[in-house]
Amino acid sequence: MVSDRPAFISFLSDYGRADEFVGVCHAVMLDIAPAARIVDVTHDVPPFDVRAGALTLVRALQYLPEGVVLAIVDPGVGTERRMVAVEVEHGYLVGPDNGLLAPAVAMLGGPQRVVALENEEFRLPAPGPTFAGRDVMAPAAAHLALGLDPGRLGPDVDPASLAPGIVPLPEVADDATVHAEVLWVDRFGNCQLNVDPAFLEAAGLDVAGGLEVRAGGHARRARFVSTFAQAKPSELVVIVDSYGTCALALDRRSAAEALGVRAGDRVTLTGRPAAGGAG
Amino acid sequence: MVSDRPAFISFLSDYGRADEFVGVCHAVMLDIAPAARIVDVTHDVPPFDVRAGALTLVRALQYLPEGVVLAIVDPGVGTERRMVAVEVEHGYLVGPDNGLLAPAVAMLGGPQRVVALENEEFRLPAPGPTFAGRDVMAPAAAHLALGLDPGRLGPDVDPASLAPGIVPLPEVADDATVHAEVLWVDRFGNCQLNVDPAFLEAAGLDVAGGLEVRAGGHARRARFVSTFAQAKPSELVVIVDSYGTCALALDRRSAAEALGVRAGDRVTLTGRPAAGGAG
Amino acid sequence: MVSDRPAFISFLSDYGRADEFVGVCHAVMLDIAPAARIVDVTHDVPPFDVRAGALTLVRALQYLPEGVVLAIVDPGVGTERRMVAVEVEHGYLVGPDNGLLAPAVAMLGGPQRVVALENEEFRLPAPGPTFAGRDVMAPAAAHLALGLDPGRLGPDVDPASLAPGIVPLPEVADDATVHAEVLWVDRFGNCQLNVDPAFLEAAGLDVAGGLEVRAGGHARRARFVSTFAQAKPSELVVIVDSYGTCALALDRRSAAEALGVRAGDRVTLTGRPAAGGAG
Repeated sequence: MVSDRPAFISFLSDYGRADEFVGVCHAVMLDIAPAARIVDVTHDVPPFDVRAGALTLVRALQYLPEGVVLAIVDPGVGTERRMVAVEVEHGYLVGPDNGLLAPAVAMLGGPQRVVALENEEFRLPAPGPTFAGRDVMAPAAAHLALGLDPGRLGPDVDPASLAPGIVPLPEVADDATVHAEVLWVDRFGNCQLNVDPAFLEAAGLDVAGGLEVRAGGHARRARFVSTFAQAKPSELVVIVDSYGTCALALDRRSAAEALGVRAGDRVTLTGRPAAGGAG
Repeated sequence: MVSDRPAFISFLSDYGRADEFVGVCHAVMLDIAPAARIVDVTHDVPPFDVRAGALTLVRALQYLPEGVVLAIVDPGVGTERRMVAVEVEHGYLVGPDNGLLAPAVAMLGGPQRVVALENEEFRLPAPGPTFAGRDVMAPAAAHLALGLDPGRLGPDVDPASLAPGIVPLPEVADDATVHAEVLWVDRFGNCQLNVDPAFLEAAGLDVAGGLEVRAGGHARRARFVSTFAQAKPSELVVIVDSYGTCALALDRRSAAEALGVRAGDRVTLTGRPAAGGAG
Repeated sequence: MVSDRPAFISFLSDYGRADEFVGVCHAVMLDIAPAARIVDVTHDVPPFDVRAGALTLVRALQYLPEGVVLAIVDPGVGTERRMVAVEVEHGYLVGPDNGLLAPAVAMLGGPQRVVALENEEFRLPAPGPTFAGRDVMAPAAAHLALGLDPGRLGPDVDPASLAPGIVPLPEVADDATVHAEVLWVDRFGNCQLNVDPAFLEAAGLDVAGGLEVRAGGHARRARFVSTFAQAKPSELVVIVDSYGTCALALDRRSAAEALGVRAGDRVTLTGRPAAGGAG
């Protein structure tokens, strides 16, 4: 690390901001690593939604500063699931071993080393049962930010034993149809799908001719456009979003509300077959 | 800038905190300017509400540290609206050129220089269409915080061509009546109006005699008081708020809810004419 | 303070994040103490809820870095209630003198010195009536973080005159029954009670035999478990939470919703008397 660059910890969770969980984890980390800078990615991942947390982390990942990522969405708190630190090319990811970290680790070239956070020496003593974020994972992240050798945090575990992430893949049906899924509904109601433009083309859809979008029992026509500004008022469009992925959008309105869809819902896209396939 | 004072970036947007937009913009800025300090003014401006964003910025402005202000409320994303950096007396404002910055710029003595953020060299490459906050405006703010000459960010544009801000002015009617507008409803339900106490006096209202407040089809009496503590339980009052502006308030309750008003709604204030004007 | 450790200000309020109040207080503090680090404990204490704010502060307290705590939940704004800085063993607490700080001060060994924040020299001039957080308490916290002698902020007041905090105590009834109260419902719906496990034992309840929980007119059986993982699906449990206190919980679901209870509600726990007391 360059000497005058502070150590960065990027922090994502489903803790919300109404309780003091996030603030206490900040305090714990800064008490250990007072010069560290903490970037709050978001703490409003829906409670216990590991998939949403994993997808959020993947979207943000390439923009996060080199250093440590602390990610906590942990429905299995108190169970036997491990907590781990994963060494990757330019840093560490710390979190529960439940699939939350897996897509990000893969995107960063795979795990170089994985340790289980079992060393009591680097945990906070808890007045009751362990609050795993506060007592185990935040301290581990802060110690790694200080330059601690990860081997000090606990025993090495086989990187191949990490819980896999579940990223839903789109499916191609016979008749120029793609079965997709809503990955994410953002604040503005745009619905990111698990489909990129090249996939639609490879699936034989003639996107230039427009698409039929079926979701929640309804069907609507949608035009394929490359910027929001090309959408007419109230026109449903399929747009390539700023992550390079297809999304359903309405100009200045919530497409999710108009279509009645949420993250995880199925969406079917149908286009005429490209290159004379009509019949 | 004094050498041991960090560079400050004050950041306001309508991004909300549920998605990772704010965190990613922080990450982008800190990657460019690792020693910068970011002050989050708020990110809960109602989506696309340029006026609310402009008013929030104006309320906060005199308290923000010298440096760079990054303000993003951008319903025209993807259209031809420019993104600009505006040099003012003690710093810069960066944002879309849609009126969001205009009242703040005016309050700071007007623009000394305006550049359009067109230089690709200071933009992030995007995997899809540009996410203007992440890819253009946050990097520009961070580079300015580092001391970059604004001319490097893009061509100079005529300061007179900046989009104007729209700040609604109150109107005086004949009969000791002022037509006002709700500028802002705060968390506690206080309704800030576009009227200051001197305006009421100049309009000939005898505020000491109390006011009639008409809003949403209803009329209520309100007393003019100088502190919240003077309000009796359940009594509607007109108070000079901590910005020096008239607001409608109820003691520990939401005046907005009681009156059924929201930001942007019209409110009529009527008082007896001052100095013997009764008739 | 160690020379290369930054000054910390831990900040808790009921300001919410939708308005610019929190951001402006940050800006005010950083303008005075540019090198200070601010830890946002939470700003979503329910509006005017002094008790909830006091309990949040107590839960977070032992994790906060040494330095200054700024806590603002202030229904009496504009009244004659004092604003104070309280010196404790390793730092200061700043806030309104309305009971908000009292439990935290007691937990830190009691007040060593109390001053009323009356010196205009350390207040910001306000364009209207004082916005006490922005104009009085945030500046005081920042000056203390810089090392100002608290006596500069205003006159000493008798520590015994501080408003007491109200922490509800549980009551024991004759028949192996404890009348408790919900102190806190967290994001996940867990209901922290004002009872610790030793109290239940001292009250003669045989917790091993299970408890009857009465709340909101309903009665349910609950098992006493030591970790979340011991709860079966849909089984109500009484758990010792990570603060060492009894809480009602359901596995991955909201116990508060299932029981229809909120913070402040009464809950009755009944167990068979321990040691052969059945009959």
